[in-house]
Amino acid sequence: MKELAYYDGRIGTPEELMVPFQDRVHFFGDGVYDATVGGNHKVYLLEDHLDRFYSSAKALDIKIPMDKKELGELLTKLLSMVEGNTHFVYWQVTRGTAPRDHAYDEAMLGKLWVMIRPNKLKDPDVPIRLITMEDTRFLYCNIKTLNLLPSVLASQEALKAGAMETVLHRGDMVTECAHSNVSILKNGTFLSHPNDNLILRGIAKTHMIQACYRLGIQVLERAFTMEELMDADEVIVTSSSNFCLHADVIDGKSVGGKDPVTLKKIQDAVLEEYLEYTGRDSIFD
Amino acid sequence: MKELAYYDGRIGTPEELMVPFQDRVHFFGDGVYDATVGGNHKVYLLEDHLDRFYSSAKALDIKIPMDKKELGELLTKLLSMVEGNTHFVYWQVTRGTAPRDHAYDEAMLGKLWVMIRPNKLKDPDVPIRLITMEDTRFLYCNIKTLNLLPSVLASQEALKAGAMETVLHRGDMVTECAHSNVSILKNGTFLSHPNDNLILRGIAKTHMIQACYRLGIQVLERAFTMEELMDADEVIVTSSSNFCLHADVIDGKSVGGKDPVTLKKIQDAVLEEYLEYTGRDSIFD
Repeated sequence: MKELAYYDGRIGTPEELMVPFQDRVHFFGDGVYDATVGGNHKVYLLEDHLDRFYSSAKALDIKIPMDKKELGELLTKLLSMVEGNTHFVYWQVTRGTAPRDHAYDEAMLGKLWVMIRPNKLKDPDVPIRLITMEDTRFLYCNIKTLNLLPSVLASQEALKAGAMETVLHRGDMVTECAHSNVSILKNGTFLSHPNDNLILRGIAKTHMIQACYRLGIQVLERAFTMEELMDADEVIVTSSSNFCLHADVIDGKSVGGKDPVTLKKIQDAVLEEYLEYTGRDSIFD
Repeated sequence: MKELAYYDGRIGTPEELMVPFQDRVHFFGDGVYDATVGGNHKVYLLEDHLDRFYSSAKALDIKIPMDKKELGELLTKLLSMVEGNTHFVYWQVTRGTAPRDHAYDEAMLGKLWVMIRPNKLKDPDVPIRLITMEDTRFLYCNIKTLNLLPSVLASQEALKAGAMETVLHRGDMVTECAHSNVSILKNGTFLSHPNDNLILRGIAKTHMIQACYRLGIQVLERAFTMEELMDADEVIVTSSSNFCLHADVIDGKSVGGKDPVTLKKIQDAVLEEYLEYTGRDSIFD
C-alpha cells in the first residue's frame, strides 16, 4: 500500500475508510494523538511516543483499547505494510462511540485510529521563516488533544505569509509554535519554555536537550520573551517530523545566524540519533 | 424514523451512518455547530440559530455548502421525518475532507452534518444543582466550535457531583456554564456576562433579555463575581434546550430562592414565546 488508514480494527486507504457517525470526536474533538517519523520501517522513538500518548489519554480519562506493547506491535506491523523508506506515522484514540452528550460513560472503551503515509524530512541546513501570534489556546497544552482549532488558524496565517510556522506568545512570553517547539541559543546557552501546561512536551525537544547535556551545552528551561527571541543567536524549531530546524526570518525581520557552530553540533547529534535508531544512512530518500 | 443522522447528503440512523476518515473534524475538531429544540416539528428560533451558525463558520473561514434559506428548509424537512413532538435538532459544518494538514485549502467546501432525536424539556419549576470550576478554555468562546474538551471535562465533574451543570469562572469572574449561560437576579436587576470572546452568545439568553426589557426588568450585561453568584436573589441557567432553569444549590451551598416573583415572570415570558412559535400547548409531551 502507498498509504494506510486504520479505525478500530478495520484497515483501508485514507480516502476510502469510513468511521461511525457517533464517534465522540465528531461532536467534541474528544481524543488525543501522537505522531512520529517512520524510518526504514522503524517507528522512531516508539517508547517515548507511546509513553506520551498513554499520558495524554490518562489525563482526559480516555481508555486506550490495548496496552503499550500491543499498540507498539500494531504500529510496527501497519508501518511494514506501507511502501517507502520515510513515513509520517500518526495515531489517535477517541473516547468512543455514543449518542451525543457532553458527559460520558466512564466504562466506555476508546477507538484507535492510525494513519501512515510517505513523508519527507526537511533539509536542516535550509533556514525557515516564522511569523508570530498571540497564544489564545486553552490551558491543557501539555495534553496532545484533538482540540486544535487555534493551531489550525495559526498555521493558516503562516501559510498565507509564506512562513513555515507561527511562534505563539502569551503577552510578551514565548510559549511554542502551532505544531512545533521553539527554543533559542544565546551566548552558548540553550533556552526553552519549561514543560508546564502552556506547551506540549516535545519528544524531539527532549532528545535535543539530552544531546545538549552530552555536548556540554548549558540548558535553561525557562520562558523567554519576544525580545529575547528576536535577539537570539539562533532560533531553533523542533517537532517529531523535523528534529532541528533553524529560522532566519521572523515577521519579516532577520534573526539568528550568530552561532552556527553550536547549532551544527546540536543538529548533528539529533540526526545521528535518528540514523542510528533507524539504520538509515541519510535523512533523505 | 425515531432519530436521524445526515452527512453531506446521506441520511441514516445515528448508529449506522458512516463518515469519511479524512474529514478534518477527526484531526483538529475543525468545525462549528448549532442546536435548538424542535417543537411540533418547527425548528424553534430557526433564523437566530442560522444567523449564529453562519457567524461561527465565517469566524473560522469554514464554507457552509448551502445558503441560509436552503439550510433552514433542509432542517425543517429532516425534522418532519422524525416521529414525536419535541426534538433535539443539532447540526454542524466541518471544514471538509483532505489529507491531514493543519493548514487548509481556502477553496475547500464544508461538510454539513445533522442529528435529530427525541428530547424532553426540563420542568422549569424544579430547581437544579450546580458546581463550579476554573474556566480554562481558549479565547474563542464566542464561536460555537467543536473544540469542546474543557466542556466535556466540566460536564463530567457535574455528573459525578450529581449536578446538572458547571459554572465556569476566570479567577473570581463568572463567565458561563459548560453548555449553558448563567445569569443572576439581584435587587430586581438581571445581570449577565457581556457577549465578548469569553462566552457564547446564547440565543435563549438573548430572548430572555428581550423578555426582561418587555417586562421592565433592568438588565446589566456585565461580568459578576463568584461572591455575587452565591449571594444572588436568583441564579438562572439557560440554553437552547432549557430556556430558563433556576439553581438552588451551588457546590453544596443553598443559593437563590429570594425573588421567585421576578423569576416566574421571566420564565412565563420565555415559555410563552416557545409555545406561540411552535403552536404547542405545553412544553411537556
